[in-house]
Amino acid sequence: MSAHNDKLSAEDRLIARFFKPLATHPGALGLSDDAAFITPPPGCDLVLKTDAIIGGVHFFADDSAREVARKALRVNLSDLAAKGARPLGFLISLALPKETGEPWLTDFAEGLRADAALFVCPLFGGDTDRTPGPVTISIAMFGSVPQGTMVRRAGAKPGDRVFVSGTIGDAALALGLRKSEGSAWNLNDKQRQYLLARYLLPQPRNALAEAVRTHASAAMDISDGLAGDLAKLCRVSGVAGEIAVDRVPLSEAARAVIARASRQIDTVLTGGDDYEIVCTVPAGKAASFRAAAQAANVPVTDIGAIAAGEGAHFIAVDGRELVFQHASFSHF
Amino acid sequence: MSAHNDKLSAEDRLIARFFKPLATHPGALGLSDDAAFITPPPGCDLVLKTDAIIGGVHFFADDSAREVARKALRVNLSDLAAKGARPLGFLISLALPKETGEPWLTDFAEGLRADAALFVCPLFGGDTDRTPGPVTISIAMFGSVPQGTMVRRAGAKPGDRVFVSGTIGDAALALGLRKSEGSAWNLNDKQRQYLLARYLLPQPRNALAEAVRTHASAAMDISDGLAGDLAKLCRVSGVAGEIAVDRVPLSEAARAVIARASRQIDTVLTGGDDYEIVCTVPAGKAASFRAAAQAANVPVTDIGAIAAGEGAHFIAVDGRELVFQHASFSHF
Repeated sequence: MSAHNDKLSAEDRLIARFFKPLATHPGALGLSDDAAFITPPPGCDLVLKTDAIIGGVHFFADDSAREVARKALRVNLSDLAAKGARPLGFLISLALPKETGEPWLTDFAEGLRADAALFVCPLFGGDTDRTPGPVTISIAMFGSVPQGTMVRRAGAKPGDRVFVSGTIGDAALALGLRKSEGSAWNLNDKQRQYLLARYLLPQPRNALAEAVRTHASAAMDISDGLAGDLAKLCRVSGVAGEIAVDRVPLSEAARAVIARASRQIDTVLTGGDDYEIVCTVPAGKAASFRAAAQAANVPVTDIGAIAAGEGAHFIAVDGRELVFQHASFSHF
Repeated sequence: MSAHNDKLSAEDRLIARFFKPLATHPGALGLSDDAAFITPPPGCDLVLKTDAIIGGVHFFADDSAREVARKALRVNLSDLAAKGARPLGFLISLALPKETGEPWLTDFAEGLRADAALFVCPLFGGDTDRTPGPVTISIAMFGSVPQGTMVRRAGAKPGDRVFVSGTIGDAALALGLRKSEGSAWNLNDKQRQYLLARYLLPQPRNALAEAVRTHASAAMDISDGLAGDLAKLCRVSGVAGEIAVDRVPLSEAARAVIARASRQIDTVLTGGDDYEIVCTVPAGKAASFRAAAQAANVPVTDIGAIAAGEGAHFIAVDGRELVFQHASFSHF
């Protein structure tokens, strides 16, 4: 026997210790193989998505590893929700600086495990590397929908109502708080904590997926700001969106900010990281959609309508259209 | 119309210009949506794999972007080949330093396009971000096999023959050349160029996938060195591997190195980046496997046998077993 050949490498030990417990799907083969396999659910299409988060770009270096792991998973789960898909599982590609130690990995794996269980979304496999750069976490996420039913961005029709889930702008305002522009807003602790939590840990609307799939003519998740994302949906649908700004649902904390700094409405409507869903629903299905959302325990709000034309238009109570400096968050 | 809302973001322009031409599968929706969908081939399992490559870790900063793109894709294609799977397509997650400009992206996209066409493996979707770190390319690769037929690492049985494709150790020796330890080897230009090309651009053995699937009891691609990878296969199969070192197929250039620096046999057998296949084949199927490999135009060599026991043993012509300092490449 060759003891030297028979030893697990440090990388294998890391995978066995931290990630194997998450690989509960039989096709993941306990992460002991080069690839995983799944038998697709019959009559279904697979929905495929990849999104990465990077230290210093999408999260702060001092964010807890547990929340970072969950954010990495949740930004992808959010896309599945908007497409009407049920999660099947994910692959993870993890690049770690050499100073990343066991405590970080323990917390990271625990966060990943917790959300994989919560969203019934097992780990299929992964890849770990050292990097001279920041922590980089790339997730490839798989979901399923009955064949031909993935909800697309294209599909909105004049006359459709525009709905959003939850509240808009909280995470973007939290970023202001963390970058300390927000000190002038005089929020109380509860308001601050509420906003900060919305940035740290998205709440993807997977509970709404089936309602979206069975009612929406078009949908997407809001990750780069409502204004810009709705504009994208309108562009590929070949329609215009007309939104009543005063109907956009805001949290109590966001309303407090705007009461003291009215120009923050721009941040709310164009900032990123909402991870809510914007969808268009034919007017005749709107009541049924509301009922399905209520049954799923996800708040939804009708914020406007789709019309012929182009662009996403945000109309204030005085009838004037808001003009934004940057409609959408972009890394480039 | 709101011109500001209607403009494509710089990120969208980048995707439309460089990557949309690669998204030839209808389910990729021209990269204009948040996710892609595929209807899985009936009666098939999906094979899932992710692997990342990082600038300064898996490739050199001055490697051409075209070759870097192809390497990123090929290291994943190599896993599909070893699992007996046919490529379906891939997702890419790309983190780019801000100094990455259009010439690099043009070359990168061209490399990706060329190999997506060559291996019939379209782009399903992706994600682009800026990073303060090095270029990081994470690919999630999808393939298919007839249901239940993915070739695993576990499955090798005593009496099986051990085969490898191609030649072993070329890429690891090339790394020595690039790090200039190799200057003492006195290789001629042709030999140097041959080895360097083997490092720069893996030649995944997808042509051999069907032969592996229909003959092999176990298989994996050799990415972390033959000795370490075969030891992994033996461990999960619960068997021993007994390899005749003089039967391990070497290129003319690798033989020239070993003639001048005999200890480089360690590098050959334990270095990484071969992207050849090691597989075990029941003795009764060995002739048929050879014939299938020949029909696929992929050289394969019988290098030894599987026995009861444990570990991967490399036996020199004098009957002594080689002892390696590091059996396998590991990032950790």
